[in-house]
Amino acid sequence: MQTPVHDRLRVRRHPERGVYDPAAIAAILDEAYLCHVGFVSGGQPMVLPTIHARIGQNLYLHGAAANAMFAACAGQPVCLEATILDGLVLARSVYDHSMNYRSVVVVGTAEDVTDPDEKRLALERLVEHVVPGRSAEAREPSEAELRATRVLRLCLAEASAKVRQGPPAESEADRQLPVWAGVVPLRLVPGEPEPDPTMASAIPVPAYLAAQRLAGRG
Amino acid sequence: MQTPVHDRLRVRRHPERGVYDPAAIAAILDEAYLCHVGFVSGGQPMVLPTIHARIGQNLYLHGAAANAMFAACAGQPVCLEATILDGLVLARSVYDHSMNYRSVVVVGTAEDVTDPDEKRLALERLVEHVVPGRSAEAREPSEAELRATRVLRLCLAEASAKVRQGPPAESEADRQLPVWAGVVPLRLVPGEPEPDPTMASAIPVPAYLAAQRLAGRG
Repeated sequence: MQTPVHDRLRVRRHPERGVYDPAAIAAILDEAYLCHVGFVSGGQPMVLPTIHARIGQNLYLHGAAANAMFAACAGQPVCLEATILDGLVLARSVYDHSMNYRSVVVVGTAEDVTDPDEKRLALERLVEHVVPGRSAEAREPSEAELRATRVLRLCLAEASAKVRQGPPAESEADRQLPVWAGVVPLRLVPGEPEPDPTMASAIPVPAYLAAQRLAGRG
Repeated sequence: MQTPVHDRLRVRRHPERGVYDPAAIAAILDEAYLCHVGFVSGGQPMVLPTIHARIGQNLYLHGAAANAMFAACAGQPVCLEATILDGLVLARSVYDHSMNYRSVVVVGTAEDVTDPDEKRLALERLVEHVVPGRSAEAREPSEAELRATRVLRLCLAEASAKVRQGPPAESEADRQLPVWAGVVPLRLVPGEPEPDPTMASAIPVPAYLAAQRLAGRG
């Protein structure tokens, strides 16, 4: 049974955390490095991590042409979820502990991308999604590499976000307990780039890898 | 159709990345803050993020008693996936770009935990999973809070991990290209704890929140 969009992606637990603004949803997807794709394979729900890129109202995924996940996803209902963890929320009570996060859930039918131009653009955006600036420098895919790669498209028409931010929420009684409460912020931080030992000559680290340009990604 | 364990969780894409050692799988699950639970709701695969805790060969999840995900999961086949992102792998070719990561996939049937002692222990371990040391200090769940909380158990009998580490892998021809290649390590770093503004008196930040104790978690 299919339930209407507004019902199957409506945030029911903590409805005040539900976010339905397409721009806010896009911003979370653009910041998240990874997503988690849910599909059904022989009656068994499966979830695998992968990367995504957004072009307007479409998300793109890529994998090997023989990828088993893609074989199970193409033309089928799938779910894509991405979550950025922003902090640990420590309440005085075990019950009110939480996390600060920004998550997105998208449902829809994954479609094979067969147009060569759309496929090339999607692969470029997948690189740019992870490291903005990289695609201008890296060697473009060959025809053989394009044939070996499968690209799927998932429309963002059905998507919602859930966001928790801020200090712990708990009862006045619990607030009187002599227990430290607050938030430990968490951030995914890039370290010093480690050059490939096989690099023949000394090539300087590109400016687009500067820590401040990569920082703040979840 | 159910496929045998060794087939449905065998790592087929890059089989050299497959890890089947239960201790290695447990270590990844223990380090990951979040997991991503896949289930089927009305024929639609869904994925939602949550936290987990491991006690031996069992994983525990918790949620509100009326949680819709749990209603769809209890007694049903589910999939739990957790991924720690360790770095961005920049090859000279777009095609060979990758990520360093450690991921785990578990499939099985989610079972309701009805034994009160097992339920209490699971809730304690969920807090300890996120912040070791916290459960000794935070107020324990009341009977009403326990009734309002549902706990599910998922056995780790069917699980596999996939791990990629190290520099980019590419052809000798591509290695001659004048493009920087290497790895940008990524690490989830805790910031300075932010005290809850409603804290009545000055309570020192607990030792278990020291950055070095929380660091290195994915």
